Amino acid sequence: MGIVLGANQYGKAEVRLVHVDRSTPRHVLTDLNISTHLRGAFDATYLTGDNASVLATDTQKNTVYAFARKFGVDEPEDFAIRLGRHFIESQEPVQGAQIEIDQLPWDRLDDHSFARPGGERRTTSVTFDGDQVWVVSGLTDLVVLKTTGSEFHGFPRDEYTTLPETTDRILATSVTARWRYSSADLAFGEIYPAIRSVLLETFSATHSLALQQTLYAMGRAVLEKFGDVAEVRLSMPNKHHYLADLSPFGLDNPNEVFIAGDRPYGLIEGQVLREEAPDAGSAWQFVPGFA
Amino acid sequence: MGIVLGANQYGKAEVRLVHVDRSTPRHVLTDLNISTHLRGAFDATYLTGDNASVLATDTQKNTVYAFARKFGVDEPEDFAIRLGRHFIESQEPVQGAQIEIDQLPWDRLDDHSFARPGGERRTTSVTFDGDQVWVVSGLTDLVVLKTTGSEFHGFPRDEYTTLPETTDRILATSVTARWRYSSADLAFGEIYPAIRSVLLETFSATHSLALQQTLYAMGRAVLEKFGDVAEVRLSMPNKHHYLADLSPFGLDNPNEVFIAGDRPYGLIEGQVLREEAPDAGSAWQFVPGFA
Amino acid sequence: MGIVLGANQYGKAEVRLVHVDRSTPRHVLTDLNISTHLRGAFDATYLTGDNASVLATDTQKNTVYAFARKFGVDEPEDFAIRLGRHFIESQEPVQGAQIEIDQLPWDRLDDHSFARPGGERRTTSVTFDGDQVWVVSGLTDLVVLKTTGSEFHGFPRDEYTTLPETTDRILATSVTARWRYSSADLAFGEIYPAIRSVLLETFSATHSLALQQTLYAMGRAVLEKFGDVAEVRLSMPNKHHYLADLSPFGLDNPNEVFIAGDRPYGLIEGQVLREEAPDAGSAWQFVPGFA
Amino acid sequence: MGIVLGANQYGKAEVRLVHVDRSTPRHVLTDLNISTHLRGAFDATYLTGDNASVLATDTQKNTVYAFARKFGVDEPEDFAIRLGRHFIESQEPVQGAQIEIDQLPWDRLDDHSFARPGGERRTTSVTFDGDQVWVVSGLTDLVVLKTTGSEFHGFPRDEYTTLPETTDRILATSVTARWRYSSADLAFGEIYPAIRSVLLETFSATHSLALQQTLYAMGRAVLEKFGDVAEVRLSMPNKHHYLADLSPFGLDNPNEVFIAGDRPYGLIEGQVLREEAPDAGSAWQFVPGFA
Repeated sequence: MGIVLGANQYGKAEVRLVHVDRSTPRHVLTDLNISTHLRGAFDATYLTGDNASVLATDTQKNTVYAFARKFGVDEPEDFAIRLGRHFIESQEPVQGAQIEIDQLPWDRLDDHSFARPGGERRTTSVTFDGDQVWVVSGLTDLVVLKTTGSEFHGFPRDEYTTLPETTDRILATSVTARWRYSSADLAFGEIYPAIRSVLLETFSATHSLALQQTLYAMGRAVLEKFGDVAEVRLSMPNKHHYLADLSPFGLDNPNEVFIAGDRPYGLIEGQVLREEAPDAGSAWQFVPGFA
Repeated sequence: MGIVLGANQYGKAEVRLVHVDRSTPRHVLTDLNISTHLRGAFDATYLTGDNASVLATDTQKNTVYAFARKFGVDEPEDFAIRLGRHFIESQEPVQGAQIEIDQLPWDRLDDHSFARPGGERRTTSVTFDGDQVWVVSGLTDLVVLKTTGSEFHGFPRDEYTTLPETTDRILATSVTARWRYSSADLAFGEIYPAIRSVLLETFSATHSLALQQTLYAMGRAVLEKFGDVAEVRLSMPNKHHYLADLSPFGLDNPNEVFIAGDRPYGLIEGQVLREEAPDAGSAWQFVPGFA
Repeated sequence: MGIVLGANQYGKAEVRLVHVDRSTPRHVLTDLNISTHLRGAFDATYLTGDNASVLATDTQKNTVYAFARKFGVDEPEDFAIRLGRHFIESQEPVQGAQIEIDQLPWDRLDDHSFARPGGERRTTSVTFDGDQVWVVSGLTDLVVLKTTGSEFHGFPRDEYTTLPETTDRILATSVTARWRYSSADLAFGEIYPAIRSVLLETFSATHSLALQQTLYAMGRAVLEKFGDVAEVRLSMPNKHHYLADLSPFGLDNPNEVFIAGDRPYGLIEGQVLREEAPDAGSAWQFVPGFA
Repeated sequence: MGIVLGANQYGKAEVRLVHVDRSTPRHVLTDLNISTHLRGAFDATYLTGDNASVLATDTQKNTVYAFARKFGVDEPEDFAIRLGRHFIESQEPVQGAQIEIDQLPWDRLDDHSFARPGGERRTTSVTFDGDQVWVVSGLTDLVVLKTTGSEFHGFPRDEYTTLPETTDRILATSVTARWRYSSADLAFGEIYPAIRSVLLETFSATHSLALQQTLYAMGRAVLEKFGDVAEVRLSMPNKHHYLADLSPFGLDNPNEVFIAGDRPYGLIEGQVLREEAPDAGSAWQFVPGFA
């Protein structure tokens, strides 16, 4: 029974690119963290150390910075598509690629000063398989909380169940959402904040009977409003807020004082999609951390 | 030559308190990370394991949650003062205390839904030494950047100096600022955002010849505008943005494409104070990470 | 075009279990971080918030602790198999599961004292699909370095290539390895340290012409020596050590002084498998971060 | 009332130096994280941006790498002393300095291959004030645990006390220890592992009635055995392991199944010193995180 090389990819991870557009006095700042992954006819380097086909990861990094100068930095999706096409078209052994970009947000203070709000990041993962391309965009670390409008009851009770039922609890989560577009030719810069708003509004407006229900409602709302989105995948940890038991101190606690827990946490992951969505191909194959 | 116990303190670190004020339909959410440190006549526990004077750290934690219910959670400074006084007044062996509180910010989405912007935190450290109390408040992780308006030249060149002079560079830092109030009886909730604004405005408005100059300008501006602040201490890492060398690719780079570096980083720390400020006592003794 | 729920799972992540076996004075300490994920007939909770089928994640956590008492904690693989079978057999709606366990290592100091070496962790991910079960074990954060015996040359040079060729460089990486066993009934506690040794020995013994070659050699060596392993997947970041340019100071640098870089880093990921390995089914579907 | 500049320092933080001694085929690997802080006559740069006295932090970094080549890298303390003296002696405005070095440990696999155990780090902080020098060395992140031999009872009970007394609990902590030597001319490489062993042995051998007692015993043991150590400061978080309550499941729990908690945690900090130790001067002024 022989031993063979299976699926593989290689590239440069976390290339930190900051771009300043100075074409007007009101500078535009773009802050990206870029990872490139190449796939193709690279067996020789694994089997014998022959690197004749291996575009160095250092070269991939150089290409990122050179392209930023040559073409500017527009939307992360467009920049990723340009990079991926370049690697596939210019290097014969490269047959596929995945370009991942996280964008770090900055708030404007004046024409050339900025403050970074931290936390949340816009993400994109563009996958190439020969001529085909899939764009999966999203956001990560969007932390949201509701102080009411969340219940959890009616679940089965087995011999290990101690959780009381509740009709009013804090619901908090850190949303990671990724959605697959049905096209690679969209106004990504306009659609992103619109989807983000729908996610926030739906979290806020949904009276929750389970975090699963909130997750599905958020995914569904995006699909209902954005015809160019084929599917949405959401990963939502249940960041538990435990009601403090103040009875030993002769105090009640009418849903007012909570202990924010670190670990463990519930973790809900799900996919919402159109019944006749175009095939996902390998779009999700290398996207980390998703059902 | 004998061996003796020197300075010591003990307490409970990182008590995560989330408080919801439901007195109106527009809920008020307060999210705090609280650490208590007690000092006093605790030699016996160190020397013999006699715990008769040692208020358990678990009890300190319980007190935090009980006080949140009994008194509500107002400004972090006021909550810290109330906690510290309680420990000193109710426990004979407790002669001093330091109560540290970090506040995690939340942005309101609607009456009872919130999103957390991440990054920056408001901080306070209240120190008690018998009847005396000092309030040191501040903020941490305030990340700011200027795309122009920053120079660095005129520095000495020794045999190890290779850095070129520049009249236009990116200046970026993550501000940790702590300021000591000259009173423990102030409208802390009003003064905090005002000081934060002055720090941001001064960073933005200062044409910088050195990060040191920016640091001093920021501290001075706070002292000039806020008579109740006795001194300001600032720690500002220079988050280097290296101009990418694109000349190997036949490209110029007119301050447009930058490599954001992780390590190493410059680190500038300084204190700005009033000449006749009241004595700091032990206010800074246990405040981490400061010159 | 209808909108439907797709793949989904839910569970409790990062349940921190520490177990002490006191059956002899020489205590045995086991420190685990356990995540449970359940799959099955859970559509109702997503669509309507009906939780009649949803075994609470709190109950899953309780089960972990109760099982540790009832059955003890043996090898992580065996504990995961027992947990997974319980959820599938006792809860009708549960049709599949993934149980992930990371083990934190402890070194013994004496009969009941231990020190934790940090860093590296043993991992397992056991996947159930109805009656079938797959065991994927591995390790993560195994940081290794060679000061010589590593070359990199012969790679193509395009217009963005500046990297010089080298016949002697530092090679450093943080190995994440996962291997799929062809059986769920093995002496996991014996095979784990043996595979770990083979990985280390092969890293050490392989004269490297590319990190890809080292990766393949490590995977192949495991398959050659362990008939019960069907495939190995490896993710190996190239933790770059840049030779410091000391020429401005009139100094040479014969591979002696290096700058350890943080970001970016090369990232090599690959799979080595037996040609006639049993089918992987959904064993890898939810394993994070792998090609 | 005037506003003035107070205490200040600046430098380069986290210079990552890896040094390979190839003088024999059995390579010696040294992995350091170095921060330099300079103090002196630097008012002009803060007040007016005049940098004529400001040795660039980039130059400080270059000096680290050049010195590693010129002098090799011996013990961290010796390397720090050499660096600090250089800055003070070669730059007239520099009147004081603090050089901090963390050493990352590596275990040898063969003549030129190594594995990094992670976790624990050896540290040193060398402070210069004109001609004077103080050496404060230590370790951080030394995680230790005892499964028995730890009690906690006899503490006062106020209205907020709910903690039960115990005569057998898990005691776990992550030790940060720093000790001040009474000389800068010692065989630091020999004394370090000896002190580390005494800390571990004392943790292990002490029957603990309070973590405070264990802390003091550890500090005292170092002073008793090492005449060149003037004082020891220890920071020891109490990493709580909560006994799981299994009674709802009809199970007892005879100190066997524990929940490892993240936050909050007790935090014990204390100093043990010789009565007639030489003055500490500014040795501790800028050492982070210590009472």
